[in-house]
Amino acid sequence: MTTRALSKEEILSQRRAFLGPSLSLSYEEPLLILRGQGQYLYDEAGNRYLDVVNNVCHVGHSHPRVVAALAEQAALLNTNTRYLHPAIVRYAEKLLATLPAPLEVCFFVCSGSEANELALRLARTYTGGLDTIVIVGAYHGNTAALIDISPYKHNGPGGRGAPPWVHAAPMPDPYRGPYKGYGRETGAQYAAGVGALLETIQAGDRALAGMIAEPVLGCGGQIVLPDGYLAEAFARVRAAGGVCIADEVQVGFGRVGSHFWGFETQGVVPDIVTMGKPIGNGHPLAAVATTRDIADAFANGMEYFNTFGGNPVSCAVGLAVLDVIEEEQLQENARRVGAYLLDGLRGLMDRHPLIGDVRGLGLFIGVELVDDRETLEPAAAEASWIVERMKEAGILLSIDGPLHNVLKLKPPIVFTAEDADFLVGALDNVLAEQADHRAGREL
Amino acid sequence: MTTRALSKEEILSQRRAFLGPSLSLSYEEPLLILRGQGQYLYDEAGNRYLDVVNNVCHVGHSHPRVVAALAEQAALLNTNTRYLHPAIVRYAEKLLATLPAPLEVCFFVCSGSEANELALRLARTYTGGLDTIVIVGAYHGNTAALIDISPYKHNGPGGRGAPPWVHAAPMPDPYRGPYKGYGRETGAQYAAGVGALLETIQAGDRALAGMIAEPVLGCGGQIVLPDGYLAEAFARVRAAGGVCIADEVQVGFGRVGSHFWGFETQGVVPDIVTMGKPIGNGHPLAAVATTRDIADAFANGMEYFNTFGGNPVSCAVGLAVLDVIEEEQLQENARRVGAYLLDGLRGLMDRHPLIGDVRGLGLFIGVELVDDRETLEPAAAEASWIVERMKEAGILLSIDGPLHNVLKLKPPIVFTAEDADFLVGALDNVLAEQADHRAGREL
Repeated sequence: MTTRALSKEEILSQRRAFLGPSLSLSYEEPLLILRGQGQYLYDEAGNRYLDVVNNVCHVGHSHPRVVAALAEQAALLNTNTRYLHPAIVRYAEKLLATLPAPLEVCFFVCSGSEANELALRLARTYTGGLDTIVIVGAYHGNTAALIDISPYKHNGPGGRGAPPWVHAAPMPDPYRGPYKGYGRETGAQYAAGVGALLETIQAGDRALAGMIAEPVLGCGGQIVLPDGYLAEAFARVRAAGGVCIADEVQVGFGRVGSHFWGFETQGVVPDIVTMGKPIGNGHPLAAVATTRDIADAFANGMEYFNTFGGNPVSCAVGLAVLDVIEEEQLQENARRVGAYLLDGLRGLMDRHPLIGDVRGLGLFIGVELVDDRETLEPAAAEASWIVERMKEAGILLSIDGPLHNVLKLKPPIVFTAEDADFLVGALDNVLAEQADHRAGREL
Repeated sequence: MTTRALSKEEILSQRRAFLGPSLSLSYEEPLLILRGQGQYLYDEAGNRYLDVVNNVCHVGHSHPRVVAALAEQAALLNTNTRYLHPAIVRYAEKLLATLPAPLEVCFFVCSGSEANELALRLARTYTGGLDTIVIVGAYHGNTAALIDISPYKHNGPGGRGAPPWVHAAPMPDPYRGPYKGYGRETGAQYAAGVGALLETIQAGDRALAGMIAEPVLGCGGQIVLPDGYLAEAFARVRAAGGVCIADEVQVGFGRVGSHFWGFETQGVVPDIVTMGKPIGNGHPLAAVATTRDIADAFANGMEYFNTFGGNPVSCAVGLAVLDVIEEEQLQENARRVGAYLLDGLRGLMDRHPLIGDVRGLGLFIGVELVDDRETLEPAAAEASWIVERMKEAGILLSIDGPLHNVLKLKPPIVFTAEDADFLVGALDNVLAEQADHRAGREL
């Protein structure tokens, strides 16, 4: 743009004037971010920030190969899917190759919300049921039907509770929940909660569509599921005639390190998998993969058309992201650096009693802050203070979890061991400051 | 891509293998389209087609200025709206400047479906009501809540009818409906149908959210509304406490020629306006504009966050599209060429009794085909035959309307008078052929 640069204050005041007030900003003093490269963001003064928040710009901000694919295809053709084009089938083939059988059919849409909407429609059309089991604290998107299945929203501020067809299973939280640890017994104990809901549904005049779950709980507070949880829960749902949806919008595409998909860490194969955020490295792209049976049942005469979904530009971008993950071995990077970062963060626990728990898979990590390691009293104010101070140290973090006390780490998966060292060192200092601050000393 | 080119047959067979079967293709023998420029698409052999279908690539396929804005911003930064960035406020300001007061707040999303979803949530939160008045034959998007308000879908193949909170007003069709012509009396007669629904809602134990309508009916069959229809319908809805939503996804952004927005041709100001398809010239972008009161009421504590919506790349693209419309005077082009094309098409009516009606605003035109101008017996098979033959003549058209007998013309608005001549000439020939074909003569 050739017009003069807007100041931070002007942008803030124009946001207030022109944009809906339900759109929030990060930080007490928001950042003006003008450039991104790899795992870094840069503000208007050229200050660099290590981005530990962005699981959308997955292979690194402004990745040159992804940008080139976008620009080249946009200059050639961007039209809907009612004509033939090679990009959509090349991309579908490559994306489906990352998934186990029988997940062999896909649909392309524009956002994680559109993907979860379509997943619900697939499940409901296939089963003829409406009732859906979700996990307490879950968020699956911003449409009416998705607010309905998102306890994080419908039980949060402004929410109106769950409709009668939505049933929330206890959060399988090995740290804070009633059953502790990551073993199979814990998994089975939490899965019994899903069983209890199925009995309620079957006892009532209701019909089951299925269950939707994130393989690692995001808004739930970066919760790693205990072993066997999804296997047991999915088996019960299937026995009751429902289908099982894995919401990979936050955690898919190699982020968990050991596997390409989060559900693989639980040893299950869902009936439907939804994908969003990282799939296009920021480009509005999302997808749903499912079985041939479910896709065929959905073709009941009502066409599903998505104007932008699967256009050649989006498919070229999606393909480039898969290529980059593969060629730069980013899943392996997430595994290696994620393990190193988890170790480093756990190493802080000795010195910093505020850290109640450090957990995660690959580069999807939560650091839960507590005032007391026995009572688990959540340290929400401290979490906010720490995130603000970390920003001053040049590191961007976010907070999640129903008690607002979990530091959420989900950087672009090009994150390095040096970045991990920088992060752990800075967090060590800020936690020490925080302890001083808490003790009422001058900082 | 460096891999070898896929043949048409390979792409077709891979689509069948990898993609959901509910995704349809245009034409008996589908086209492989590899390049687009302006109002033209090119197949794998370099054959050129005049694109009279695409109201998404609004300012012309692969417009260099839009592509440059996309590529430049993508190389710099693409992140979410939780940081400050100038593009979102510059774009919001410019977009809102096209709208009358009090439409002064906007939200950015990724698709027309996301826009209409948000519009429903806004209307329902603001009014506390759920019940929604729609027009028979309308299509507003592909999510669960939007299928509910789309008679085109829920009363079509695979549909399960309208839920009790959705009330369909008679289609205000001046050609085929019970009241004829475009005068204010006809408008009032159809608007009385909305009044009757409001009485039913008020008599029952129901609460009104509002009414949603396209200012020119798209899936309804390119229906131009009679004068005063929306003014009268909106007045009744408001008197009953509802809000009025104009769905500009198909017709906005200068396409109607005389005005920038379709609703302006009806002399109304909606409470909520939704935008999609043409807004980003193919880039997945959409928006909702509304009043300060409605936006403020929506900020009830529940955040509305859209991961991709309003990112710097999407806003740069949206801004470039507005700049191009303005600088290339494309609204004026739509007005001038649209009027010329309407004249040309009407000129065919003398020679071709199959044409029952030619109607439209700017470059949003319908040609309704009938077997009999008295009984209005729809000529659906003839419409399909003509669209296939027009393709062979190098012109892409689509068919719409509940009776599948309306040729739908909605080209990129860079369409020229020469394109109109080419189209009218070809249609003249194909209609003559069709008459011969019908008469059983050798073609």
